[in-house]
Amino acid sequence: MAPEPVGDFGLIGLAVMGQNLILNGADHGFTVVAFNRTVSKVDNFIANEAKGKSVVGATSIQDLCEKLKRPRRVMLLVKAGSAVDDFIEALLPFLEKDDIIIDGGNSHFPDSNRRTKYLAEKGIRFVGTGVSGGEEGARYGPSLMPGGNEEAWPYLKDIFQSIAAKSDGEACCEWVGDEGSGHFVKMVHNGIEYGDMQLICEAYDIMKRGLGLSNKEIGDVFTEWNKGVLDSFLIEITRDIMYYNDPADGKPLLDKILDSAGQKGTGKWTAINALDLGMPVTLIGEAVFARCLSAQKGERGRASEVLKGPEIAPFSGDKKAFIADLEQALYASKIISYAQGFMLLREAATEYKWKLNMPEIALMWRGGCIIRSVFLKDITKAFRNNPSLENLLFDDFFNKAIHNAQSGWRNSVAYGVKVGIATPCFSTALAFFDGYRSKVLPANLLQAQRDYFGAHTFRVLPEAASETLKEGTDIHINWTGRGGNVSASTYLA
Amino acid sequence: MAPEPVGDFGLIGLAVMGQNLILNGADHGFTVVAFNRTVSKVDNFIANEAKGKSVVGATSIQDLCEKLKRPRRVMLLVKAGSAVDDFIEALLPFLEKDDIIIDGGNSHFPDSNRRTKYLAEKGIRFVGTGVSGGEEGARYGPSLMPGGNEEAWPYLKDIFQSIAAKSDGEACCEWVGDEGSGHFVKMVHNGIEYGDMQLICEAYDIMKRGLGLSNKEIGDVFTEWNKGVLDSFLIEITRDIMYYNDPADGKPLLDKILDSAGQKGTGKWTAINALDLGMPVTLIGEAVFARCLSAQKGERGRASEVLKGPEIAPFSGDKKAFIADLEQALYASKIISYAQGFMLLREAATEYKWKLNMPEIALMWRGGCIIRSVFLKDITKAFRNNPSLENLLFDDFFNKAIHNAQSGWRNSVAYGVKVGIATPCFSTALAFFDGYRSKVLPANLLQAQRDYFGAHTFRVLPEAASETLKEGTDIHINWTGRGGNVSASTYLA
Repeated sequence: MAPEPVGDFGLIGLAVMGQNLILNGADHGFTVVAFNRTVSKVDNFIANEAKGKSVVGATSIQDLCEKLKRPRRVMLLVKAGSAVDDFIEALLPFLEKDDIIIDGGNSHFPDSNRRTKYLAEKGIRFVGTGVSGGEEGARYGPSLMPGGNEEAWPYLKDIFQSIAAKSDGEACCEWVGDEGSGHFVKMVHNGIEYGDMQLICEAYDIMKRGLGLSNKEIGDVFTEWNKGVLDSFLIEITRDIMYYNDPADGKPLLDKILDSAGQKGTGKWTAINALDLGMPVTLIGEAVFARCLSAQKGERGRASEVLKGPEIAPFSGDKKAFIADLEQALYASKIISYAQGFMLLREAATEYKWKLNMPEIALMWRGGCIIRSVFLKDITKAFRNNPSLENLLFDDFFNKAIHNAQSGWRNSVAYGVKVGIATPCFSTALAFFDGYRSKVLPANLLQAQRDYFGAHTFRVLPEAASETLKEGTDIHINWTGRGGNVSASTYLA
Repeated sequence: MAPEPVGDFGLIGLAVMGQNLILNGADHGFTVVAFNRTVSKVDNFIANEAKGKSVVGATSIQDLCEKLKRPRRVMLLVKAGSAVDDFIEALLPFLEKDDIIIDGGNSHFPDSNRRTKYLAEKGIRFVGTGVSGGEEGARYGPSLMPGGNEEAWPYLKDIFQSIAAKSDGEACCEWVGDEGSGHFVKMVHNGIEYGDMQLICEAYDIMKRGLGLSNKEIGDVFTEWNKGVLDSFLIEITRDIMYYNDPADGKPLLDKILDSAGQKGTGKWTAINALDLGMPVTLIGEAVFARCLSAQKGERGRASEVLKGPEIAPFSGDKKAFIADLEQALYASKIISYAQGFMLLREAATEYKWKLNMPEIALMWRGGCIIRSVFLKDITKAFRNNPSLENLLFDDFFNKAIHNAQSGWRNSVAYGVKVGIATPCFSTALAFFDGYRSKVLPANLLQAQRDYFGAHTFRVLPEAASETLKEGTDIHINWTGRGGNVSASTYLA
């Protein structure tokens, strides 16, 4: 007779993230069964990092499954893509109805949609969960964003909320919603992270090249900012980075780092998804493109020889006042970025027919993850006050905040424009704000142009409707007297 | 015995574009065989529009193929997607080795890649061609952008260059390159069209809301602009639109048109492709997002009630001088947009291993299509002067042009920022320019942040390399003294 199963949950994939999540689980009183394709890694882990902890090794998938209590809970922390599907197939022969497979990797959400449906047909509950916070988060409290088959949640809630980061006593983990929505929310989180980082870079660039501050002085500014509305993990580490000197010569390490950033991941996915859903998530888009431009290091070097801008004169104004403006520019741009991110989430819920737990998404980002900040408390509050809040900018707190920030924000952008320091994300945020608050945009001209050259038709403003221009109907005008009166159907110019 | 075949080329799909291309071909002395799935449409066309012309109807695919000279040339003008594949399959039994299938629809370029390969294996030559210019272009001279199996080109060149638009005596049609590159170039053309239209809208908005000009006065400005560097089809039709009054009441029709624009097509594809290839095509991206924002008409209306910007005071400066600035802003932004578009083409050639006929791409856009302009002559010249030109901004003409434009451009963007009129595309173009000409961007901070929180590693500037910080190696620093010294491999924050 097989021994009584002891494992509260199983984990496959013993890279650093997997190991740390296991140790985190054991610290919280759970017995974790560990497995890895290369089994020697299991032995090694049990004999070293996991020694003396409630961690049990498994020698095979079958062994893993036999050691788990029912319903079984098996988490995969393997490379996103086919490895996930392979492990799912390997697990299936040893699972029973109502068992739970959790994918904690960086899977693309359409894959998690597919896997939820596929496994539901087999009576297995699938959960795709975002895990954020890096190695340290995994070890001492990550942000967890689980979505998929909601039937699984009662069996996961205790474990997930125990190991997750805490913010003001609340676990940074709640049920996100249907299908791949957990991975979707993680994707948007990462896109927002791209934006937050780029915004900080723009503030740094203006202080460095515009105000001529030293790294130490910039570090002091970030120290101050970290006590105010911008208080966050990313501002904190930026402060540390500004103060960090190369031990070899005592000079700022930052100045030695190549200004060429990679991008291929979830930031790009977020921007592509925004385009697909027709949501104007401009700040993340520009942040991804800023990385692309940074990567053109050689071409930029050649361009810098032949393309000249204004001379950046030594800053003659009140530096302190300008730094206060810059703080507001960063804050306001950040508000816009999150407002856009939540617009995308709302549209995704509609488009993919997901029930999304909007008020708790901000909670999940409040601790454990890269974008954790005081700011996210205010967002949580906004959505808890009004779970069907149409836009973050309609919330009283943020409405006031952005109006307060407005003049400093405009000054900062205008300064960059004048002296020739690029601030693509500050600028796009402001353009969004000014467009968003415009009852009338110049897209009427665009529609007229499209009808002129391609017979694409237009509609009229309700207040301008008439006998000949009926509201709600697609109208084509023969603008020139030449050409046809027939509107285009399939042809797109 | 079957009669001697008479058809120079066949065309399937008798919607307005197909009909017009047939009539165009007949006008140029070719005998065209026409077919449509609903055969009554063929009879109707032959009896009416095509009456007395060298157009022959076909009653079936087989009949079409029997009526064509060898190698057969069959053009599809059907809805992009599965209809193209269906017709290819329907044609195959009646085609012989070396026959040519041409897809003239708005296919997505990966489909054309696939079809080129698939048909090459069967000995059939596939060509995917961009066709631009709408109904009128198809009838009297479109822009044609053929790519695919180059063996087909000698058999198509005469027909294509005869029916294409002419610019200064040159046909707006040359061989583009391999596989789906013809449809790719058409896609980028459309993306650029999105950008050009949005730029004109921004200039219009500033003149209308900022300067308080009437439509008639704005029309007069566009009339002037159409005589200068901006001389183009889109400026011309914008002028007409400004002057167009609703016959019912004599008031400007433009003011009655709903400011909500559609987007779902090739502009979006271009932006997504730019993200996929990591190319900073920011202007098209913002133009697509501007359409998305315009479509949020209801939400914008509600936002306009609660989000307030600066009052737009009556313009007190020199209007004429400011309009000259605005012209330069539009011109400079347009240069950036085309520079970005050609960066994307260059990267696509590398990424997809296409031989791309760079100097002639601008030629193909010079006439017949929506973005036709005097401007494209200068681009043709730039690439003919130097076919391996790294960037349009390195060409003497455009280099001078953008330096000339710079102060007006900065003034225009700063004005929008100050008064609160959104100019997302002017702004992103300027941010790109300032970023592109920056030898050093703040992405060093971004790399430091990524290494700090995720051990993603960084590289050093060549000039800062040392014993401990080696050039060309991925370096991870233990920024805090806590955490591991191991760099991340698979985990992405």
